Amino acid sequence: MSIIVQKYGGTSIGTIDKISKVADKVISEKNNGNSLVVVVSAMSGETNRLLNLAKSINPDISGRELDTLISTGEQVTISLLAMTLAKKGHKAISLTGSQAGIFTDDIFNKARIDYINNLPIKKYLDLGNIVVVAGFQGITKAGDITTLGRGGSDTSAVAISVALDAKECQIFTDVNGVYTTDPRISPGAKKIDQITTEEMLELSSQGSKVLQPRAVEFAGKYDVGIRVLSTFEEGTGTIIKKENDDKMEKAIISGIAFNKDEAQLNIRGVPDQPGIASLILGPIADLNIDVDMIVQNVGEDGLANFTFTVPRNDYKVAMQSLKESSKKLQAKKVKGNNEIVKISMVGVGMRTHAGIASKMFSVLAENNINISMISTSEIKISIVTNEDNLETAVNVLHKEFNLDK
Amino acid sequence: MSIIVQKYGGTSIGTIDKISKVADKVISEKNNGNSLVVVVSAMSGETNRLLNLAKSINPDISGRELDTLISTGEQVTISLLAMTLAKKGHKAISLTGSQAGIFTDDIFNKARIDYINNLPIKKYLDLGNIVVVAGFQGITKAGDITTLGRGGSDTSAVAISVALDAKECQIFTDVNGVYTTDPRISPGAKKIDQITTEEMLELSSQGSKVLQPRAVEFAGKYDVGIRVLSTFEEGTGTIIKKENDDKMEKAIISGIAFNKDEAQLNIRGVPDQPGIASLILGPIADLNIDVDMIVQNVGEDGLANFTFTVPRNDYKVAMQSLKESSKKLQAKKVKGNNEIVKISMVGVGMRTHAGIASKMFSVLAENNINISMISTSEIKISIVTNEDNLETAVNVLHKEFNLDK
Repeated sequence: MSIIVQKYGGTSIGTIDKISKVADKVISEKNNGNSLVVVVSAMSGETNRLLNLAKSINPDISGRELDTLISTGEQVTISLLAMTLAKKGHKAISLTGSQAGIFTDDIFNKARIDYINNLPIKKYLDLGNIVVVAGFQGITKAGDITTLGRGGSDTSAVAISVALDAKECQIFTDVNGVYTTDPRISPGAKKIDQITTEEMLELSSQGSKVLQPRAVEFAGKYDVGIRVLSTFEEGTGTIIKKENDDKMEKAIISGIAFNKDEAQLNIRGVPDQPGIASLILGPIADLNIDVDMIVQNVGEDGLANFTFTVPRNDYKVAMQSLKESSKKLQAKKVKGNNEIVKISMVGVGMRTHAGIASKMFSVLAENNINISMISTSEIKISIVTNEDNLETAVNVLHKEFNLDK
Repeated sequence: MSIIVQKYGGTSIGTIDKISKVADKVISEKNNGNSLVVVVSAMSGETNRLLNLAKSINPDISGRELDTLISTGEQVTISLLAMTLAKKGHKAISLTGSQAGIFTDDIFNKARIDYINNLPIKKYLDLGNIVVVAGFQGITKAGDITTLGRGGSDTSAVAISVALDAKECQIFTDVNGVYTTDPRISPGAKKIDQITTEEMLELSSQGSKVLQPRAVEFAGKYDVGIRVLSTFEEGTGTIIKKENDDKMEKAIISGIAFNKDEAQLNIRGVPDQPGIASLILGPIADLNIDVDMIVQNVGEDGLANFTFTVPRNDYKVAMQSLKESSKKLQAKKVKGNNEIVKISMVGVGMRTHAGIASKMFSVLAENNINISMISTSEIKISIVTNEDNLETAVNVLHKEFNLDK
């Protein structure tokens, strides 16, 4: 029998009724002749409820005890789902991260999976059980409970799929697949049937929130096929596969992602000398602020201009730090904008098709959309523009690159 | 340093504010120079909330998954208390039943502790931590989560005290000690300073709900001193010790307990022959109904009368079964009463003082209280009477035996 791993998120199992519907989906896949492992998150709202309890004790709470606390959320759902499956006449057993042998490092609150001892799950599958595993959590070698950080259940599901050499990892969510762009912005957005892990990785880290980037990364590394499906409607979803299938259709552009959670900072007229980037970004990194895009160029005056983006929440603190650096570096000017959007076009076809970038820029120019930053990778072009331009930019690009066809 | 084990029940830690007050009590005992292990229950209401979720899936739910579910209740409180202690500047660590090495048998929902591996707790105590352990739960050798049944946290605390050779096991509750009887029934009820485990065992199994009988039994077996204290007011509480202390004051009567949760069944005029008791009680036991008091005697007609008590909830089912047995046994009459109360006087002094029983009966007779059953043990006399008589009976006995002095 082939092993299928299914993962259901918090909104899919937010109530006893929804858990019952999930159980029906699980049973139906089992009745197709597969062995089933089901990875679940906490019921929607539960992780936040627990987090708020902790924060009422200590607003800056982090570390070991927080993981012990919030890991109870998944422990509740695994047992409720196993009970429901049993009530519907199917042998089922729940396993916590610890019981399922999911070993992680000891970076509490955002642990990484080191390895999975697949014997417990295999043992229970061999005994004919549907095995229900708590996502998002694991255990250190020393026996401490850890969590993988928000959205970590996707990673759990993919890692378990790898450990069991599963036929497919099905991620059930509240959308019926990955789209060429956000349908709320672009009504012409189309569901993608198949996409490479690399493209998905660029899409998800660029703001398509269907799948955790870490899970996609993991799937790509170990060559596991992921299928994104809707919990609430029928359909074949989107398959995410490593680009090793010759028959796989290679779209030039797979999708357009965008991210409104960033802010842009700019420092102008600094001496163009070695080490200048670290003098500017070092103090920002010391504040534990993640820098995303970085662009540096030299103006006509021989002085460097330096632009970068940070999470919007960190904008004020980053700006304060940049102003201090500016004095030390005797820069001419410091500017910032926290009403930007980053828009990214992603597609493996870019590798073999020239002129995608220039086409993108000219379409935007024709529509009076000013670009303030550009950053490219092998399969991605990202631009930054004012937030106001989001809808127009996405729609004209979507149309121009025939994503609505 | 001496080790003190403290246990706080659900009402003591029902809110974040109460957890903060508990933390203060823990810290104050630590500041007395002791090593502290704190055993906690789930926040009040939480176990019922989880149980209701499970029952909405399956009203007859029991077994492994139920324990996985409800054990999350304590896991939440251990982490919250450890966070609170840390916030107040004290090194603290939480341990689930599994992490604390509390191994049980695999009778889910009412497991018994087999042994405790005291190394994890000792290790963390040696590192200067206040160790917060989840009560009520353990783990089987196979790694399944178990719970000890309602009130099991008391047993956890006593078992941990034994495993650590603790100086004292302090059970914090919402009363400030063990009373000669229920103060709500008898305003003259007095707190008992010291009581033997045997007496406490009789009192608690007879309806004094301060301590779980199993915990008292455990403490008696391994000679651990328990102190019952109030979470909410200062005081020295009640010490419960094995009767091996010569200086221990031996009261003739320690206290009066009562139990309104039983019902009485009576079958009259059955042939007085060997095996008759099992013919009557066998079918009741087959229905999983616990029989408490049993009285059999033979009337003038040479026929036997047989009376016994069952939990009041099981009254109807037991009566139905008894009526069926009655036909088979050709009994003359079947009667029942589900408005009874069992009143018990307990005291090690009974062993050496004659006439306690007859004094009890005559006091009750003087007050027109009719006794329908009597049962005695070495340190206890129990009678059954109509529920209406409860208050009068307890008060006149309390006075007659000078418990209010």
